[in-house]
Amino acid sequence: MKKMQQLYEGKAKKVFATDDPNLYIVDYKDDATAFNGLKKGTIQGKGVINNTMTNHLMQYLEKNGIPTHFVEQISDRETVVKRVKIVPIEVIVRNIAAGSLSKRLGIPEGTKLQSTVLEFSYKDDDLGDPMINDYHALAMGLATREELDLIASYSFKINQLLTDYMKDLGIELIDFKLEYGKLDDGTIVLADEISPDTCRFWDSKTGEKLDKDRFRRDMGGVEEAYQEVMHRLMGK
Amino acid sequence: MKKMQQLYEGKAKKVFATDDPNLYIVDYKDDATAFNGLKKGTIQGKGVINNTMTNHLMQYLEKNGIPTHFVEQISDRETVVKRVKIVPIEVIVRNIAAGSLSKRLGIPEGTKLQSTVLEFSYKDDDLGDPMINDYHALAMGLATREELDLIASYSFKINQLLTDYMKDLGIELIDFKLEYGKLDDGTIVLADEISPDTCRFWDSKTGEKLDKDRFRRDMGGVEEAYQEVMHRLMGK
Repeated sequence: MKKMQQLYEGKAKKVFATDDPNLYIVDYKDDATAFNGLKKGTIQGKGVINNTMTNHLMQYLEKNGIPTHFVEQISDRETVVKRVKIVPIEVIVRNIAAGSLSKRLGIPEGTKLQSTVLEFSYKDDDLGDPMINDYHALAMGLATREELDLIASYSFKINQLLTDYMKDLGIELIDFKLEYGKLDDGTIVLADEISPDTCRFWDSKTGEKLDKDRFRRDMGGVEEAYQEVMHRLMGK
Repeated sequence: MKKMQQLYEGKAKKVFATDDPNLYIVDYKDDATAFNGLKKGTIQGKGVINNTMTNHLMQYLEKNGIPTHFVEQISDRETVVKRVKIVPIEVIVRNIAAGSLSKRLGIPEGTKLQSTVLEFSYKDDDLGDPMINDYHALAMGLATREELDLIASYSFKINQLLTDYMKDLGIELIDFKLEYGKLDDGTIVLADEISPDTCRFWDSKTGEKLDKDRFRRDMGGVEEAYQEVMHRLMGK
């Protein structure tokens, strides 16, 4: 496997081509952004933690019937993944009200939702990733009806799997963001990452935030929170 | 039928109790507001036009299988309607991109959508009627799964009926907002109004706006636009 030219640099990751046209290498950075890039900073060690955590959880999901883009971790920060075309829809799954949902709908943060909420956002930085529903996605040609149904079904299953998994570690899964990609043959697979950047994790006993909200909200203890989740997950 | 105490005054209508506990009287005003009440004004004759148009179209829909709250028009501005509990969800149906959709999703106004878009908003002035999806509605207990499905099904049927009806009058139905209510026995019926306040109507040939956007956007000819739609619809 040879790392070739950089194809893309995002807010938290770089993506490189390889000598295999069907594989990419993802390289996790310590850079942190929030509020659609308005707030910028660094979280020391985040790249290593998010790479390790993501791969650990992707393998767990894969074993439990969720196809993912994961292939092989090749260094602390680098992972080989399948080449996909990202579906331009961010999927947010919510168990407890927090963040933008609390603000938008006037539901106090920490309120248990009567049923799980699935949200779609149109992945477009210039528009601020606006919320959309199935009809918008179809009208804009972002995905087919079948793809949306599959994405919803995977996302609910991932929620169940991750909620149970984190609960055993004393962590409550409040909400999280997923992205999916399409292989050349049209297969939908889970892509992107699963980390404290993309999930809200609260300590089950104390309610302490163990995620990027510590950075977003200037709460301090950002690095320690990422390390704590890593420690509980990997025992190191 | 005796008109009793005022129960509610909204932006465009007043609602009164009657001596029949199952009936209300709606009284249409000439007051116009936009942008969640930030812009205020008067559109001369609007109350009479919206009352007449709404009743005409509600009866047309009723004949075509859509249950509505309409009972009887009793004056230029007043109509007897069934007492309902309003479902706190605004339903928006869109055929052509315009207004908030164009702005939010970056789709130029006037673009034909690949498929009809149905949107829900949580009816809450303080929150600015934020967009929600089915999962939010369920998690907030705003309606049941069965009610949401029925509301969606009615709304698509209404879109087909109104689109065809207006086309014959040389008017293109761009988008519109509906509200539903629940009778005591749980029956869902169409409520509120159907008028240039709640619909975007464009002249089929010239594209001229024949609706409240003339007021929202200070385009002039507001009264004339309402009268033109009334004229095409009622022949007077």
